[in-house]
Amino acid sequence: MKATILSIGTELLFGQIVNTNAAYISAQLQMLGIDVMYQHTVGDNPKRLKEVIRESLKETDMIIATGGLGPTQDDLTKETIAAAMGDELVINKDIEEKIRGFFKKNKRVMTENNLKQAYLPKHGRPFYNNEGTAPGFALEKDEKVVIALPGPPREMKSMFEQSVLPYIQEKSDSVIYYRLLRLFGIGESALETALEDLINKQSDPTLATYAKEGECSLRIASKRKSKAEAIDAVLAMIEEVRDIVGEYIYSEDDEDYPEVVGKKLIDKNLTISSAESCTGGLFAKSLTDIPGISQVFNRGYVTYSNQAKIEELAVSSETLEEYGAVSSQVAEEMAVGARKNSDTDLAVSVTGIAGPDGGTEEKPVGLAYICVSVSEKNHVKKIQVRNVNREWNRNYIMLAMFDLINKIISEK
Amino acid sequence: MKATILSIGTELLFGQIVNTNAAYISAQLQMLGIDVMYQHTVGDNPKRLKEVIRESLKETDMIIATGGLGPTQDDLTKETIAAAMGDELVINKDIEEKIRGFFKKNKRVMTENNLKQAYLPKHGRPFYNNEGTAPGFALEKDEKVVIALPGPPREMKSMFEQSVLPYIQEKSDSVIYYRLLRLFGIGESALETALEDLINKQSDPTLATYAKEGECSLRIASKRKSKAEAIDAVLAMIEEVRDIVGEYIYSEDDEDYPEVVGKKLIDKNLTISSAESCTGGLFAKSLTDIPGISQVFNRGYVTYSNQAKIEELAVSSETLEEYGAVSSQVAEEMAVGARKNSDTDLAVSVTGIAGPDGGTEEKPVGLAYICVSVSEKNHVKKIQVRNVNREWNRNYIMLAMFDLINKIISEK
Repeated sequence: MKATILSIGTELLFGQIVNTNAAYISAQLQMLGIDVMYQHTVGDNPKRLKEVIRESLKETDMIIATGGLGPTQDDLTKETIAAAMGDELVINKDIEEKIRGFFKKNKRVMTENNLKQAYLPKHGRPFYNNEGTAPGFALEKDEKVVIALPGPPREMKSMFEQSVLPYIQEKSDSVIYYRLLRLFGIGESALETALEDLINKQSDPTLATYAKEGECSLRIASKRKSKAEAIDAVLAMIEEVRDIVGEYIYSEDDEDYPEVVGKKLIDKNLTISSAESCTGGLFAKSLTDIPGISQVFNRGYVTYSNQAKIEELAVSSETLEEYGAVSSQVAEEMAVGARKNSDTDLAVSVTGIAGPDGGTEEKPVGLAYICVSVSEKNHVKKIQVRNVNREWNRNYIMLAMFDLINKIISEK
Repeated sequence: MKATILSIGTELLFGQIVNTNAAYISAQLQMLGIDVMYQHTVGDNPKRLKEVIRESLKETDMIIATGGLGPTQDDLTKETIAAAMGDELVINKDIEEKIRGFFKKNKRVMTENNLKQAYLPKHGRPFYNNEGTAPGFALEKDEKVVIALPGPPREMKSMFEQSVLPYIQEKSDSVIYYRLLRLFGIGESALETALEDLINKQSDPTLATYAKEGECSLRIASKRKSKAEAIDAVLAMIEEVRDIVGEYIYSEDDEDYPEVVGKKLIDKNLTISSAESCTGGLFAKSLTDIPGISQVFNRGYVTYSNQAKIEELAVSSETLEEYGAVSSQVAEEMAVGARKNSDTDLAVSVTGIAGPDGGTEEKPVGLAYICVSVSEKNHVKKIQVRNVNREWNRNYIMLAMFDLINKIISEK
C-alpha cells in the first residue's frame, strides 16, 4: 500500500512552524508496512488543495491529511476532500453534541461557527477528537481512502493512536506490534554492525536503528496474523538482542534516561543529591523534569567556581591545586561532600570541560570525571566526549551520569 | 515570484528526521517577498523526483531543492535536475580542488566517489560549501530557476546565507533588511492588538508576530531600493514599536533571555548566584549554556527539600512553617542566603509549584515567587502561570527570573 502525507496550512508555507506531523505519521505508517511516497504541504487554498488531492489519489492509495479542520473561514479541508471524492457534507448529530459538551465542560461560550465542525462527509467514518473540538474522518471510494486529521500535533497524535491505527489494522489481515529499545554507550554504526546478522537474516521482526543526541534507539517490529504472535516474535527478538548488546540497553519501552533512573530511585526508595560543575545544573534539571521526584531528590549543587567547590562541598584546596578542578580526585571529593551534606543514599558529581574554550593538550574539551558516592564507596568514571559543541557535550555528560547511577543502583 | 520547496531524501519519508529545512527556507523566502506555494518531499527516486520537478516548474518560478547531493549511489539530485532543465553535468575544477583540500585539511582519505561531488550542471552557477564537501548550484532556464542545496541543516543554512541570499537579491531590484525583536510578559494576541494600527496602516516595513513558548517575537522587515533606506525604515519602526510595547522588549537582535542577561552581567561585571526550588536547576542550566559565564556565575543551589532550604540557605524553619515553602517570605530568605553564602553582587531565587500535582485552592499549580537580592535590597515578584504542563510552567518561571534580573540590572 502506498500513501501520501498532505499537510494543509499557510503557517507551514510561511515557515512559522516546523512540520512535525509529517514525520510522526510517516514513522507510524512505515511501522504498519505502508510506504510513504510523498509528503506535500499546501496552504489554505481550495484550488491547489483539490489538485494535489487528485494527483495524490492517482499516484497512491491513501492520503493522510492534517490541518484545516477548524471553525474559521479558511478551514476548507473537509469541503475540498468531499468534493474531490464526490461526496457531500452533512451535519453529524453525535459530533454536534460532543462539541456543545466540550464548550460546556470548559465553561466557554460557543460561537455558531464552531458548529461548522460538526459537518462531515456523508459516507465518511467520523473520528472523535479527545483533545479538542475538530473531528476527523476517513472517506473511502474505489479502493482509495482519504483520512483527515486536525493540525495541532497533540490532537492529531491522540486521534491517530485511538482511531486511525485501529481503522488501518481492521482493514488489514495482520497486526503490528513493536517495541523501542534505548541504548547508551554505543554508536549507531557500531550497533548496526553488532546486530548485522539479526538485521539481515530475516524479514520479521524487522530491526531498525536510529541515532539520537548521544544515544541510540532500536525499533523491533513484527507484523503477524494475531497480536499474540506478533508480541511473541518481538519478545523473542529482544532476548536475542539482549545477548549481544544487553549492557547498553537502558530502556525496552522508549523511556528516556532521567525517567528510567528516577523511577528506579523511587521504587528502591534511594535518596540522591548532585554536585555539578560543567553541566551547570543540567543533571538536576533533567531529574526534576519528572513529577514526584521530590520523594528522592533532596538537593543539588552547581559549584561552578573553585571557591564554591571548597565552601559548599568541602573539596580541599590542596586537591584542587595538585590535580586541577577537572580530575578524578575533585570529582570524588565533590560527590562525598554532597552526600555528607545532604545525608542521601547516593550522590553524583561531575567536573569537566564543556567547551568551546578551556581545553588544553592534556585536558581537552569534552573531558569529564563523574563520581557516584554510595555508603562510603566511590565509583569514579572518566569520560572523553568527542567534542561536537557545548550543548552536545553537556548533554552527553549528563546522560553518562545517569548511566553510571543506573549501573550502580541496578545491582542494589 | 512563486516558489516550491523540494526536500529530497528517503529518511524524511521514513519519518526518521523532521524537516526543519523546509520551514527555514520558507521563512527566508517570505522575508524576501517570494511566495512559497508548495513544500514537497520525495525519496531518492529519479523518476518521481523528475516528475515533481516538472510539475513544480509549471506551477512556480523557482524551486529550492535540498538533499541528495552527496557522494553515494542514491544521491541523484544533480543528474535529475540537469536532465529536467535540459543541461548536463561536467566536472568543475575549482570544486574538485576544494574537495581535495577539504580531505587534506581534515586528514581524511578521499575515496574516488567523493569526486562525484565536483560534477555540476554545465550552465549552472556553483555555490561553495563551507561546512562540508557537497557544493550546491543555481540553474536557470526560460525565466525559471532551480537552486540545489545540501541536506544537512548546518550546510544548507550556511550556503543559503552566503550564496543564495546574494544570488536572489542580485536578481531583484530591491534589498531586504529585517530585525527580530523578542518580548516577554505580553501574549501574542495582546501584542497584535497593541500594534494593530502600525500593522494595518502601512505596507512597508511589515510587522509580523510569532508566539514562542511563554514569549513572543516580532519581525520588522523592509524592502527598499537600497540597504541604507531599508535599515532606516526598520529602525524608525522599531522606535515606534518601543513607544508602545518597549517595556516588554528584551532583545532587538533575536537573542534569547539567558544570553541577553548573561552578556549584561559580564559587561557590568556583576557576579550572580542562584537558589532554585521548583525549576530544579533549569535557571542555572540556562545561564551556563553560555560559554564564558563562569566569569560571573559563581554557584547555584537546587534546594528541593525544606531541609535543604534550611541547611544550605539558612531559611528559617519558622518562616517555612508559618508561610509555607511557596511564599514570598521563603523566596526572599532563599535569595538572601544564596547571596550571603556566595558573596555575589546578586542572587536570584524561586519557589513554586510546577505541577502537575501539588496545587491547592489557595496555592494552585503555576504559582511561584521569585526574588532578586541585591546589596541588601530584595525585589520579590509573584508569578501565576497559566497551567499548561510541567515543562511549560518551569520554562515560563525560568524566563520570569531572567526578566526580573534584567529589569534590575538595566538600571544599574
